Amino acid sequence: MNTTRIVCFGEVLARLSAPNGEMLLQSPRLDVCIGGAEANVAVSLARFGHDATVASALPANALGRAAHDRLRGLGVDTRGIAFRPGRMGLYFLTPGAVTRPSEIIYDRAGSVFANSGPQDYDWPALLDGAGWLHISGVTPAVGPQAAQAVLAAARHAKDAGIRVSFDGNYRASMWAEQGYDGAAILHELIGYADIAFADQRDIALVLQRPELAAPERRADAAAAAFATFPRLGALTATVRVQHSIGHHHLAATLHTRGAEYSASPVAVDGIVDRIGTGDAYAAGVLHGMLQGWAYNDILEFGLAAAALKHSIAGDFNLASAEQVQAARQGAFDVRR
Amino acid sequence: MNTTRIVCFGEVLARLSAPNGEMLLQSPRLDVCIGGAEANVAVSLARFGHDATVASALPANALGRAAHDRLRGLGVDTRGIAFRPGRMGLYFLTPGAVTRPSEIIYDRAGSVFANSGPQDYDWPALLDGAGWLHISGVTPAVGPQAAQAVLAAARHAKDAGIRVSFDGNYRASMWAEQGYDGAAILHELIGYADIAFADQRDIALVLQRPELAAPERRADAAAAAFATFPRLGALTATVRVQHSIGHHHLAATLHTRGAEYSASPVAVDGIVDRIGTGDAYAAGVLHGMLQGWAYNDILEFGLAAAALKHSIAGDFNLASAEQVQAARQGAFDVRR
Amino acid sequence: MNTTRIVCFGEVLARLSAPNGEMLLQSPRLDVCIGGAEANVAVSLARFGHDATVASALPANALGRAAHDRLRGLGVDTRGIAFRPGRMGLYFLTPGAVTRPSEIIYDRAGSVFANSGPQDYDWPALLDGAGWLHISGVTPAVGPQAAQAVLAAARHAKDAGIRVSFDGNYRASMWAEQGYDGAAILHELIGYADIAFADQRDIALVLQRPELAAPERRADAAAAAFATFPRLGALTATVRVQHSIGHHHLAATLHTRGAEYSASPVAVDGIVDRIGTGDAYAAGVLHGMLQGWAYNDILEFGLAAAALKHSIAGDFNLASAEQVQAARQGAFDVRR
Amino acid sequence: MNTTRIVCFGEVLARLSAPNGEMLLQSPRLDVCIGGAEANVAVSLARFGHDATVASALPANALGRAAHDRLRGLGVDTRGIAFRPGRMGLYFLTPGAVTRPSEIIYDRAGSVFANSGPQDYDWPALLDGAGWLHISGVTPAVGPQAAQAVLAAARHAKDAGIRVSFDGNYRASMWAEQGYDGAAILHELIGYADIAFADQRDIALVLQRPELAAPERRADAAAAAFATFPRLGALTATVRVQHSIGHHHLAATLHTRGAEYSASPVAVDGIVDRIGTGDAYAAGVLHGMLQGWAYNDILEFGLAAAALKHSIAGDFNLASAEQVQAARQGAFDVRR
Amino acid sequence: MNTTRIVCFGEVLARLSAPNGEMLLQSPRLDVCIGGAEANVAVSLARFGHDATVASALPANALGRAAHDRLRGLGVDTRGIAFRPGRMGLYFLTPGAVTRPSEIIYDRAGSVFANSGPQDYDWPALLDGAGWLHISGVTPAVGPQAAQAVLAAARHAKDAGIRVSFDGNYRASMWAEQGYDGAAILHELIGYADIAFADQRDIALVLQRPELAAPERRADAAAAAFATFPRLGALTATVRVQHSIGHHHLAATLHTRGAEYSASPVAVDGIVDRIGTGDAYAAGVLHGMLQGWAYNDILEFGLAAAALKHSIAGDFNLASAEQVQAARQGAFDVRR
Amino acid sequence: MNTTRIVCFGEVLARLSAPNGEMLLQSPRLDVCIGGAEANVAVSLARFGHDATVASALPANALGRAAHDRLRGLGVDTRGIAFRPGRMGLYFLTPGAVTRPSEIIYDRAGSVFANSGPQDYDWPALLDGAGWLHISGVTPAVGPQAAQAVLAAARHAKDAGIRVSFDGNYRASMWAEQGYDGAAILHELIGYADIAFADQRDIALVLQRPELAAPERRADAAAAAFATFPRLGALTATVRVQHSIGHHHLAATLHTRGAEYSASPVAVDGIVDRIGTGDAYAAGVLHGMLQGWAYNDILEFGLAAAALKHSIAGDFNLASAEQVQAARQGAFDVRR
Repeated sequence: MNTTRIVCFGEVLARLSAPNGEMLLQSPRLDVCIGGAEANVAVSLARFGHDATVASALPANALGRAAHDRLRGLGVDTRGIAFRPGRMGLYFLTPGAVTRPSEIIYDRAGSVFANSGPQDYDWPALLDGAGWLHISGVTPAVGPQAAQAVLAAARHAKDAGIRVSFDGNYRASMWAEQGYDGAAILHELIGYADIAFADQRDIALVLQRPELAAPERRADAAAAAFATFPRLGALTATVRVQHSIGHHHLAATLHTRGAEYSASPVAVDGIVDRIGTGDAYAAGVLHGMLQGWAYNDILEFGLAAAALKHSIAGDFNLASAEQVQAARQGAFDVRR
Repeated sequence: MNTTRIVCFGEVLARLSAPNGEMLLQSPRLDVCIGGAEANVAVSLARFGHDATVASALPANALGRAAHDRLRGLGVDTRGIAFRPGRMGLYFLTPGAVTRPSEIIYDRAGSVFANSGPQDYDWPALLDGAGWLHISGVTPAVGPQAAQAVLAAARHAKDAGIRVSFDGNYRASMWAEQGYDGAAILHELIGYADIAFADQRDIALVLQRPELAAPERRADAAAAAFATFPRLGALTATVRVQHSIGHHHLAATLHTRGAEYSASPVAVDGIVDRIGTGDAYAAGVLHGMLQGWAYNDILEFGLAAAALKHSIAGDFNLASAEQVQAARQGAFDVRR
Repeated sequence: MNTTRIVCFGEVLARLSAPNGEMLLQSPRLDVCIGGAEANVAVSLARFGHDATVASALPANALGRAAHDRLRGLGVDTRGIAFRPGRMGLYFLTPGAVTRPSEIIYDRAGSVFANSGPQDYDWPALLDGAGWLHISGVTPAVGPQAAQAVLAAARHAKDAGIRVSFDGNYRASMWAEQGYDGAAILHELIGYADIAFADQRDIALVLQRPELAAPERRADAAAAAFATFPRLGALTATVRVQHSIGHHHLAATLHTRGAEYSASPVAVDGIVDRIGTGDAYAAGVLHGMLQGWAYNDILEFGLAAAALKHSIAGDFNLASAEQVQAARQGAFDVRR
Repeated sequence: MNTTRIVCFGEVLARLSAPNGEMLLQSPRLDVCIGGAEANVAVSLARFGHDATVASALPANALGRAAHDRLRGLGVDTRGIAFRPGRMGLYFLTPGAVTRPSEIIYDRAGSVFANSGPQDYDWPALLDGAGWLHISGVTPAVGPQAAQAVLAAARHAKDAGIRVSFDGNYRASMWAEQGYDGAAILHELIGYADIAFADQRDIALVLQRPELAAPERRADAAAAAFATFPRLGALTATVRVQHSIGHHHLAATLHTRGAEYSASPVAVDGIVDRIGTGDAYAAGVLHGMLQGWAYNDILEFGLAAAALKHSIAGDFNLASAEQVQAARQGAFDVRR
Repeated sequence: MNTTRIVCFGEVLARLSAPNGEMLLQSPRLDVCIGGAEANVAVSLARFGHDATVASALPANALGRAAHDRLRGLGVDTRGIAFRPGRMGLYFLTPGAVTRPSEIIYDRAGSVFANSGPQDYDWPALLDGAGWLHISGVTPAVGPQAAQAVLAAARHAKDAGIRVSFDGNYRASMWAEQGYDGAAILHELIGYADIAFADQRDIALVLQRPELAAPERRADAAAAAFATFPRLGALTATVRVQHSIGHHHLAATLHTRGAEYSASPVAVDGIVDRIGTGDAYAAGVLHGMLQGWAYNDILEFGLAAAALKHSIAGDFNLASAEQVQAARQGAFDVRR
Repeated sequence: MNTTRIVCFGEVLARLSAPNGEMLLQSPRLDVCIGGAEANVAVSLARFGHDATVASALPANALGRAAHDRLRGLGVDTRGIAFRPGRMGLYFLTPGAVTRPSEIIYDRAGSVFANSGPQDYDWPALLDGAGWLHISGVTPAVGPQAAQAVLAAARHAKDAGIRVSFDGNYRASMWAEQGYDGAAILHELIGYADIAFADQRDIALVLQRPELAAPERRADAAAAAFATFPRLGALTATVRVQHSIGHHHLAATLHTRGAEYSASPVAVDGIVDRIGTGDAYAAGVLHGMLQGWAYNDILEFGLAAAALKHSIAGDFNLASAEQVQAARQGAFDVRR
């Protein structure tokens, strides 16, 4: 196994979700799991055997400690998590079904992470010995302090020669609550990235070229991104077709400066939990890159990881690399 | 929002159901919800923003009060519900799966509602200020007292110039327990209706013309109904094709005296709860009529409501009109 | 109903399974049911109205008694079960979904049943008055004592003129833990069988002719089996195509010495529980044979039983023969 | 173990209860168990190793069959249970706590059992080979048909020389629904009894001597009963002091024609389920009588059984005789 | 029943609690109920039959609507609740046991209610026709906007001649987060009150006379309060002795300007849920006052209500007045 | 915080328990937690802030990995856990109530840990840098390999100058399954201990002086132990009086060579989970010793930890040192 240490920086959240098939609070119970885009990537990488660190801020109370312990239990290095007074970032999920889409209510405003700015993280120490930094576009949408914190992290990584991956994760409702220019921040962040998980809509947004957002312009958008961001070496995203809320097909593309790769659609049926599948994809791709695989293999492994995540309750892809490989090969028989 | 007050008259039931995938009492637990064909319509209309009243009789005990409170909580006007000594109407549901159909055991005999006759309802007061009365064919099958009660309600509505909608809801096993002529009662009830939720089988039964029951005779059956019932202005029903217990296609037709409308099949996959989908359809159509929409819109909204209900546990369609519209347009992405 | 007494000999297990959609111990709860290949057959036969006996050994503790009581409650004759000191045979199940296959961890080593040898069963008494003995290939894989016990049972049945059915149930991981020659034991066991539930892979293994294992060689494998085993009168197996973990098509074939029968694929969608479906098939076929039906009816009933089992949580097919017949005819409407 | 066959005649009920600490339907779930005064006695006797039969009538549907299977699983002989069309007798339980008493809503009117009269039971066959008949005062309160049925059973037992035990089980709310003279029926029933489980209030009621109902008149009431009922050999009852809903002391007395026995109060703290403790007492006393123990031992065993039942969820005392003996001796250490 | 309309103003919260006996997030599930000091009072009063209104602000999302519907279902008039964009006030509860006290994490900062100030409530309309306003000391601790809002409400009530009750509900941790002078605000609020639910510690705090906080100074504290607050007519509080987390004794005192009343300790054992018992006490006392009872009766009813609440899961006292009276008289037998 | 590394060597088990108030498999569900005497000590020490390591062997499957991850999540250093092929050690718990004691069925025979002998542990590496080794008498009762393994660990600790604590944990049923001389092994193990958690019964057993087993001989037993084991510096044990299964009083004594200390009984009422309370006591005492406290403080802290554990579901004492201190001081108010 590759020994590169990967640091994932972002907010760790508690997800509170209605039981499947129920509206929120239809019955007096919520299922709880820990998640957050970057933590999801870290957990999956740790399950694949990597040395993955979460850098974040959590409240110094029982909720924050439980979130921390969950990550530590799954093999994530949690020494980059600071505990401070304040509230836990939450989100409420009503899982969809049939023709009813899943609904999320974010409750992240004023969280400890949202209130933590660049002065609250010691990036030289946090990134010491790291070979990779993973960040996402959701962090600058959490609030102005978090936005400055992720910019500081990315700048430090650039200066220290640490590779950077960036996942778009555009959340319109969160940006709507902020008063500052998201496109400029995202533009700067992608500028530091070696690989970006972003599709044509993300690129169109960041480059403020809305004509690139059409699905058939994915290759053009990639070309425009490569023209704009000289550090960027690869751009990849999934393609999702939704027949119903529980039955999708999922494909993926990856563009480099010289080539284009695609993985054929995989049927994703009887979905258990759709949340975190993009993060599972990112972790799968990063795993392949860290293993030094060919792009076709990277892409197929990432796609298999994303598909497999739909079978697991909660935000995390808890599967091992061996399980992803088996699923990729369509080994569906009961394993005894 | 239209301000017409709609009165729904019928039995409010407690449903006791086995957990999904289990036979009845396979494990020592039952999930409980409140339902009943007409209450289901009232709840959906209230969620859509209408002034919906349930007129009924419930036992003066903790079960009856819990049923009442559930309806009140969902915004239904419950002042038309009388509490009397006696037992609660129940039904036991074993939800189906794969190739095993859902099974219902009715336990409504001797209930407070079954024992309440026309003398137990003050229709002038209950319908005072109402613009619409919704009834169904299940009520006369509950017992002779209930049969006379619903006839009295419908006669009063006719006399008072209140519009009447009638849902067939034919339950062979319940009629089999009664000793009187169901077809005659249903015939009289449809005679008071402005709109009937009924397909060719219902018409064939009421008109005692079995040859009309074939699926391809739906238009003929409608014509025969219009010829028989001079007040009847519209006749509508869904068309359900079941590929497996959890995967259907659902379409709908609506006939007026001058025209025929149809809505294309919608895929209904990964079904959570099939019960109450006909009532959700009725509420969707009534919503459209109360809004004064064109028949095509009414039909598509009703169909989208019926499809969406398959995603929600329990008898009730708890969705808002906005959620139905979103589902109608196929907006399947996670809503954040 | 046919009055033949059927004795099913094998290990009764407690199954401990993760809730659907969760990895093992992802949440601190396990669902428990009682199962085991031969007990599953006995339960289904008892539900179909037959006089079915389980012969086995269970631990003399609360686990063994609960397993015994569960079988007795379902109508199985449990007087052939001996209680002895020792441990209960267990298996842990992680149900699959989407592209993630179900996983089983067997924990049967050292169980009371594994430690019980031929000296621990009084076959003349246990088979007294019986017309049928059902055994499977999983028993000799449990351990050397169990292997000798099942051989003794089969030899006694042959001597006593009792018909024998044998289900292959090949479990590679269990055989891998044993140090003896499985093929020889299975060879002897099939030699006592009047009917075998086995496909071309089972035959290829037992005859040590790997070239017969290909799906298109099923008829050739049957021919080879008939040539080798003079008592064998029928050979039958299902054919499963898995589109996803929750969506299969299931067909079946049956070979006699003179003819070949097949049943068309049945869609199996929205699967609740895949475990025990082969045993449900065996019980369905045995039911048809005991009823004296034609082979086409036997095959279709068995296939309908196997398909229906996918809808029921736990190892057992709890459906009645009437429910299987209804499912066979595609009666999908809610039964009220 | 004594080989006397004991027949327990009465209604088998499904109990539907709110989770502990919740009001009825506060959350959308009910816990279900099978019970009924006489079935409770039969189950406990079967767990103690006796040959116990339930004679009753159950609905020919999934509820009735599940109730039957539960009794059969626990070792009760269920061949005396007839299946007939109709509804299942139910009761709804809201368990109490702190200062809030448990509340029961009976829903037994019109049940299959209530509608079954003397013509529906073949007492010569049902009591053939039996040495003991156990009945209770709740049966005549179920309805006039049931009242005549239990009288016929008791008369037959008397004629056949079968010993009879009678448990008072007075339920004022159930008698209030009936229009006939309960005291006269109870008077006749006690007249057939060899032993009665009844306290001074029961005696005062049946003899219509209200002055005997005071606690300090227990011995006088016993004397009056012996004077009135020449067959009666023993009269026994518990004495319950309730400090709070979950903390009681329980003692017991037993009167014969020549002597009086009493067992010292046992602390009953942290109560799990109070229902069925009187039936557990009856079964404990009957066990002692069938074993031929001295009255002091009988009384102490009965009291220990009653106390132990408070620790077990559901109507049934599932403990073995060995567990009762251990509890009687105050063996509280964890048993490993 | 008295027809006075009572308006309760305060924050409506969602409570998220660990299952009994577990630490927070020990298992991945939270039980949810709706609560909040003033809403708890309103619900109990509505259950007692009063016309109780909640005035508050809730988020315009699924959480806010579910909270609203829960109150409406329980009979509270919710027309005084405004929906606004923002977050729901939450609190996380870890219920205690044995020697481990319950722990609460408030998560109310930045809630819709905290952000709603005096300009957001139309007090003349909200209090129109009301005879009583109930407020508590927790509201000014929520934040500066809420503090000004409750002051405005109380000032308006005083001007309109509406009686005011005030419950101290001192929460040190919440005040610690605010930067303003709590004692002054509480001083002004008590100044408007006709009755205060406050003990010697509350008085000592508000009057800044710490020497009054000792338990034996309760009468002195009351005298000091009457001397300071000319409108104040009655002062009442419970006295709680905790033997263990689940076993308390609860008494109560009530002081008027001329007299002192006390109710003897009630044993509170096997506690289900301790939260909301003070609010149940307040509602019980207000019920007695609205009924015009003598102070001894008021005090005993309030104490019985508080004791009974310990038996019910969730924040609300769901008991009826009849149930409280029965508990007050120690009627502990199972009610059938 | 003291920085001594403590190594706890023993079997890590999965506990499978019936829901409270139910007999084993009364309902089809088991609650699962991870435990084991020595792991329980390690978890509690880690929660108190110590550097605690578990040395053990777990199966290389999903069960073993889940157990490992649970320990790691709680802050235990798990690098001393080896994964090997085989089965997981289990135990089944039926929690007691009222007068029914808890019952445990051990299912540890043939586990990976039982099959691991001295050759499977690299003690110089595992104990490198450690200051303390904690072992218990349960390990030699697991089987002969485990017995030799723990002897090797203790011998190495002695040679390396590492302090040793030994907890008796005598399990008669486990020793009964082994064929070797337990007393001799336990004798040798205590000989290596600096502190032993053992009462007079343990001493009597090891010294084969049954007359010392009486409760009033505790001091004599301690004297005899000190005379026999020259390394032994302290001997401590709790004293438990059980009023009912859910209500105990717990005290403790500690003997040194020169003095005797005792802590007064603490009421332990409304018990949630009694298992692991002895391990919580051991961890509490070790915490005090590592902090260098006076013996009285050590004893009281240990007793408070043991009492507090009764309030927490599962084997582990999840409380912090601060929570134990608060409980020790009887701070029972809700902490907000």
